[in-house]
Amino acid sequence: MGSQAMLNPLDPEEFRRQAHIVVDFLADYYLNIENYPVCSQVEPGFLTKTMPLSAPLQPQPIETILQDVQKHIIPGLTHWQSPGFFAYFQSNASTGNFLGEMLLTGFNSVGFNWLASPAATELEMVVMEWLLKLLQLPKSFSFSSNGGGVIHGSTCESFVCTLIAAREKKLSQRKADLGKLVVYCSDQTHFSLQKACRVVGISHNNVRSIQTKKSMNFQLSSDALLTAIESDVRAGLIPLYVCLTLGTTSTTAVDPLLALSEIAKRFLMWVHVDAAYAGSACICPEFRHFLDGVEGANSFSFNPHKWFLTTLDCCCLWVKDQSDLTKALSNDPELLKNKASDTKNVVDYKDWQIALSRRFRAMKLWMVIRSYGVTGLQEVIRKHVKLAKHFEALLIADKRFEVVVPRNFATVCFKLLAPNASNEDSKRLTQTLLDSLNASGLVYMTHAVIEGVYVIRVAIGATLTEEKHVHMLWDMVQEHATHLLASCADIE
Amino acid sequence: MGSQAMLNPLDPEEFRRQAHIVVDFLADYYLNIENYPVCSQVEPGFLTKTMPLSAPLQPQPIETILQDVQKHIIPGLTHWQSPGFFAYFQSNASTGNFLGEMLLTGFNSVGFNWLASPAATELEMVVMEWLLKLLQLPKSFSFSSNGGGVIHGSTCESFVCTLIAAREKKLSQRKADLGKLVVYCSDQTHFSLQKACRVVGISHNNVRSIQTKKSMNFQLSSDALLTAIESDVRAGLIPLYVCLTLGTTSTTAVDPLLALSEIAKRFLMWVHVDAAYAGSACICPEFRHFLDGVEGANSFSFNPHKWFLTTLDCCCLWVKDQSDLTKALSNDPELLKNKASDTKNVVDYKDWQIALSRRFRAMKLWMVIRSYGVTGLQEVIRKHVKLAKHFEALLIADKRFEVVVPRNFATVCFKLLAPNASNEDSKRLTQTLLDSLNASGLVYMTHAVIEGVYVIRVAIGATLTEEKHVHMLWDMVQEHATHLLASCADIE
Repeated sequence: MGSQAMLNPLDPEEFRRQAHIVVDFLADYYLNIENYPVCSQVEPGFLTKTMPLSAPLQPQPIETILQDVQKHIIPGLTHWQSPGFFAYFQSNASTGNFLGEMLLTGFNSVGFNWLASPAATELEMVVMEWLLKLLQLPKSFSFSSNGGGVIHGSTCESFVCTLIAAREKKLSQRKADLGKLVVYCSDQTHFSLQKACRVVGISHNNVRSIQTKKSMNFQLSSDALLTAIESDVRAGLIPLYVCLTLGTTSTTAVDPLLALSEIAKRFLMWVHVDAAYAGSACICPEFRHFLDGVEGANSFSFNPHKWFLTTLDCCCLWVKDQSDLTKALSNDPELLKNKASDTKNVVDYKDWQIALSRRFRAMKLWMVIRSYGVTGLQEVIRKHVKLAKHFEALLIADKRFEVVVPRNFATVCFKLLAPNASNEDSKRLTQTLLDSLNASGLVYMTHAVIEGVYVIRVAIGATLTEEKHVHMLWDMVQEHATHLLASCADIE
Repeated sequence: MGSQAMLNPLDPEEFRRQAHIVVDFLADYYLNIENYPVCSQVEPGFLTKTMPLSAPLQPQPIETILQDVQKHIIPGLTHWQSPGFFAYFQSNASTGNFLGEMLLTGFNSVGFNWLASPAATELEMVVMEWLLKLLQLPKSFSFSSNGGGVIHGSTCESFVCTLIAAREKKLSQRKADLGKLVVYCSDQTHFSLQKACRVVGISHNNVRSIQTKKSMNFQLSSDALLTAIESDVRAGLIPLYVCLTLGTTSTTAVDPLLALSEIAKRFLMWVHVDAAYAGSACICPEFRHFLDGVEGANSFSFNPHKWFLTTLDCCCLWVKDQSDLTKALSNDPELLKNKASDTKNVVDYKDWQIALSRRFRAMKLWMVIRSYGVTGLQEVIRKHVKLAKHFEALLIADKRFEVVVPRNFATVCFKLLAPNASNEDSKRLTQTLLDSLNASGLVYMTHAVIEGVYVIRVAIGATLTEEKHVHMLWDMVQEHATHLLASCADIE
């Protein structure tokens, strides 16, 4: 370098050369992914303590950098694409998605309004209409009515935007203090809702997290919701928003949408349906019934970046009345004025989200849908559900385990039973089983505590997971349990 | 397909084959990018009216999909990577960034907390410390003090998070109503701040957008700020937050950080410095003085996705006291409990941002810094500044044009002068010049209105822009102006 000018950093031939190298690096990564411990086994500080303290002065060749990725980064990754990944909910990648990310990054067109990249806006509208049909969402959510869909970065962003829409609408209808507004959810609702409420200025004192019960499969009960609302109304508060969940994080419970939204409507509340995980399953006719009642909602969201072969970040949100969103979130600065926006005949997505700038996320969703087709996407869902069903059956047939709640989709919650063990002992035992399974490096699962019971959650959904991996998991669960129960017996 | 099982959607060899095809597609796109009109010339509905109304049932081969990208998508793109792109602020891509996006998408590890992907968290800490040193930010913003850095998706997210941090801190210190809190900025501050205030529940009645003047180069004046604050305090309101800008959107004005932050400190306010555009320039010693006084700020942000060879989305935020952020944004659900987090010895970035999930954005920034080195990154900044300086000199030397404000970085604001023209005529003339230049398809610029004057903004910063493109622009500006002024004279 020095005084000599460097090659343009976007020189097409150098781009071509280096990008081909990285394609092979990643293809080899997927080939070898089972050689890495699923959950990273490094200690805190493994990288901050070994990396140089300052940025390099001179450019470094891609070959050197990739050696460092192999040596320093990969050991510190938790391998979410590993077939042994059964933790949290998966975020399952695919080739089609990867190609879409390549194209959208390559174009890097910043589509805050229609003009800044018409194709980015219109492809998003097209894809959101495709998905609307695929999920058989009511036509009221379509651009052809007063609704429409937008791709957000996360469910939390969708929570924040719909909360603001609801808040502004309510405060425009009746003069009231922000401190009077109340939000309802269940104790199984994703914890991001609490944070979203905090973001928009609704105190946790005004968020009702209604208790659910195992005996009702952790569904939000209509009676409990009604009681909570009526109590608030008597206290002079104003019911604002209720969040219903299709596929809760702990146990994939499904709230009864129809009954709950009817109650909410009586109190002129905003109803949001969060189907982050299980929405994807509803593209299969046999699961669509879980969505019955969604017509009562003001907004609906699901995350293709969980179970729709799409990587982060991709959360699809539909609203029944797009003006609810745009009234609350639009701005119209001189700098962005243009003829197309002035006509009001185009969608300017900046007014549907928090930030101004936005990635061309529709591209990856479009690539996924076209690369696999509806039949391919359904096949993926059905494969994972079938594997989970099989795993659940194996657990049920073995008296040492209890499947704590019935499986709805592809996630199984179970615990280890010990003869005459107290709840506390049983918790410790199941926790020890989880730790020992994860320590093997071959699999990675996480836990939940439901009605005081500690359970291992097995979320089946990584793209590379096949029948043999679930069999391996089952063999390991049996083996580790046998060992654990034997050592317990020894101690007794 | 049908009953026959499809190939796994992440089959390594199929991934390899298809990804290589897309690499070549994109390399060819960059080779041919000058053949496309910079700003898309399609009409609203061009894509929504031509795309199929439903998702395809069967998978489609990548070759077919890419034909559609070429035929249907590319004509609808505004080509932000074109060397003729001088609009808004650029978002300049690079090969190093692209490779980083490939890797982070390929791994798709969702690093909400340390354990979910230790490398994602620690590489982010490493890169943020590198940048801190490169920008010579005060050590108080470092992890080695009580501070630290995080990568957000946008400046708006950084506004929202720092506003919430300031809001929660203030309300914990003195019992007050949210409606009493006041935010200050200038009329040149990015309009996203107004939206961020709305998001966090601060009414626009409580946002003071202080008028700036051309005679002061559109800097926020200390006197005006002080007057506004004192007036609010007298009215019983509570000054909360001031946003200072380094490189405003219209004219790249730089607020005097030191004087303004000293005033704010007297009133115990949170000071945020938004250097979205011009922060990148401060890696060159000759521009670092613009950052003098940043030590008075509570938080500082800049966007590598503008002028640091990095694509959307990438906004770097530092705070002086990380507990300000985490107290306001943390949550600790059972589902995410783990030993590493329990020790409090690790950073869990979910508590530094709005959403839970996050992409491994540090990877692309690390790839950019290593691929080009500090010297390469400085060279890019200097090249653009030199081109802008040259363009400014050409305008100044031609009596038909006025450079309306002195250039600070690589953005030039000018208007066309017409003999004896009123301000309204001059506006119309400059607007017509802009429209005719953009209609050529060879260049794309946007406008601003400053103190009532309509100006053409030329933001030089696309990676592929070379001297010849700026010369082409200058030739076009002259030619179109000559034509325009001649037709005006004809009419007179």
